[in-house]
Amino acid sequence: MVKIPVKVAVNGYGTIGKRIATSILRNDDFKLVGVAKYTPDYRALIAARQGIKIYVPREKVEAFKAIGIEPEGYIDYLLEEAELIYDASPAGQGVKNKKLYDKLKKPVVFQGGEDPSIVEVSYSTLCNYSSVQGKRYVRVVSCNTTGLLRIICSLGVENVKRVFATIIRRASDPGEDLKGPINSIKLDLEQIPSHHALDAKTVVRDLNIETVAVAVPSTLMHVHVLEVFLKDKCIDVATLEKSSQGRVVAIHSKLADTTGKLIEIARDLGRFRNDLYENIVFTNTFTCRNNVLTLIQAVHQEAIVIPENIDVAYGIMNLETDVYRVISKVNSLFSIGIIKQIFSGEGSI
Amino acid sequence: MVKIPVKVAVNGYGTIGKRIATSILRNDDFKLVGVAKYTPDYRALIAARQGIKIYVPREKVEAFKAIGIEPEGYIDYLLEEAELIYDASPAGQGVKNKKLYDKLKKPVVFQGGEDPSIVEVSYSTLCNYSSVQGKRYVRVVSCNTTGLLRIICSLGVENVKRVFATIIRRASDPGEDLKGPINSIKLDLEQIPSHHALDAKTVVRDLNIETVAVAVPSTLMHVHVLEVFLKDKCIDVATLEKSSQGRVVAIHSKLADTTGKLIEIARDLGRFRNDLYENIVFTNTFTCRNNVLTLIQAVHQEAIVIPENIDVAYGIMNLETDVYRVISKVNSLFSIGIIKQIFSGEGSI
Repeated sequence: MVKIPVKVAVNGYGTIGKRIATSILRNDDFKLVGVAKYTPDYRALIAARQGIKIYVPREKVEAFKAIGIEPEGYIDYLLEEAELIYDASPAGQGVKNKKLYDKLKKPVVFQGGEDPSIVEVSYSTLCNYSSVQGKRYVRVVSCNTTGLLRIICSLGVENVKRVFATIIRRASDPGEDLKGPINSIKLDLEQIPSHHALDAKTVVRDLNIETVAVAVPSTLMHVHVLEVFLKDKCIDVATLEKSSQGRVVAIHSKLADTTGKLIEIARDLGRFRNDLYENIVFTNTFTCRNNVLTLIQAVHQEAIVIPENIDVAYGIMNLETDVYRVISKVNSLFSIGIIKQIFSGEGSI
Repeated sequence: MVKIPVKVAVNGYGTIGKRIATSILRNDDFKLVGVAKYTPDYRALIAARQGIKIYVPREKVEAFKAIGIEPEGYIDYLLEEAELIYDASPAGQGVKNKKLYDKLKKPVVFQGGEDPSIVEVSYSTLCNYSSVQGKRYVRVVSCNTTGLLRIICSLGVENVKRVFATIIRRASDPGEDLKGPINSIKLDLEQIPSHHALDAKTVVRDLNIETVAVAVPSTLMHVHVLEVFLKDKCIDVATLEKSSQGRVVAIHSKLADTTGKLIEIARDLGRFRNDLYENIVFTNTFTCRNNVLTLIQAVHQEAIVIPENIDVAYGIMNLETDVYRVISKVNSLFSIGIIKQIFSGEGSI
């Protein structure tokens, strides 16, 4: 049995890394040793002033001091100190970091941008929580794949005959404002299916899924148009919400019909960083006829993988075997449930 | 002497109204009776679930019930109950509401979208706090004008010979995503100067100011390019920050050179609704030579007028005569000062 709190290091402090760090700080089962930061920027400055210990590469110490940050130490010290490592480095950097991790013999949670071949398990809570226990290298699939798999595994893999999804993805994150497209719609695939289908199959091996993706000039959420051919009978949206354990929530588009308005809801709720941890399904797009389910959902690219990143730690560290207890604990950490509470009174719309 | 807490009604619950309501809820000197809401939308639903009492027009009761809101009463009940009214209705609606207010004989704070002729005083804290005491109709000038006047009145009106400002304004607010321009730069004026210069003069009558405005496809903050001809000698940016009582803060553009990144700072700080209440001056754009001061600043359109809206209540209700004590109290309500604390360690950048 692992001693609680589990000591955690976060390697990389961008969009995902900073959110994992915040979540670890709020969770008594874990203790944040510190974060590895490679660029002396405003994120580093805010983290340092919030009391987060910053570890940096040897050659960057002076650059951090120049913006007023006294680094706690070098990155290898941080990794040695931790019992669990999150690799939240830019896509493709994780495989390079792995050489370091190999020496350390510690469990590492990678992100969806890494190649699945570098890990033992690609992961999404509602699909394969139990498969990560005792594993050393696990990868939480990307935001779009997490959004898709939450639906698929809530429906039950055994009940899904085929999935076809069109992903209309945001161009970049709000603070990452140098990427395009800025006024054009870009094909986000080299072939059909796009990599999202292949990614989903790293978690659910024999899934019959096809995905097509385009990128649009927005920083606020992805939108998925989903068609699911069911083997058995149709379900309703309330059942989907329920079997997702609250990770999927329905809102009628009369109340919010743009991703901008959904983010505004997160702002009005006082969510930290206006994060939406839930898949938002537009209630009135949910239709199921002749065993074909169609829906449109929005997925907040910055936030959606964060609950799964915390769930996985309970599995990988052998802290809890029951997935429902993990989800319930993590949901309450993120106030998942509040949106359902607020919008369940939609009544007769 | 008015009894504390002062009972407040907020008439209109959009971008500004909801922020005023939140601020009133957090301030023990005031008590929110409720808000007047005209459209049954997600804002209303969230407010209702947060325990805010919703008052609606007689003919809208059923529409609110249909989305699961039980209105507290009609809007005229709300206005009768309050001792101070904020009119946060859409621009131009305030003058129509005024007929109601005339009968009520209560102080009303209007917003910058209203014509200055309907009020006794147009207001900006650092310029004319003392002029609102005991007044009945006061108007807090718009976001852009507030941003300009904070600089001008911090410099001291008597020291300003002439101001020339280019306003690059955001197209609309994040949740108000149906306005343009979406991929074009739009002249935002009928003549030179744009209305912002005229608006500034409603507060500082004989100000020599010219403004030019264009609208760009963004929802994240306005940017002002300011040229101020000083009568006396140059000052440095630290002096400007200090004389603004913390309402103006400098950040080096090496740490954040886009409005997207500034909003990201507000998100990382955990600011409610990611609001930036401070003018953000880019440190390295601040130059003063031969009595000509130049700077670039960013102004968060949704949030910048909120401190001034709370300040003014202390003046209009005769709760406090000393402007510095009011600012200090309101600053601490909004954690104004935290950004200065974080970025003051910029060191040798």
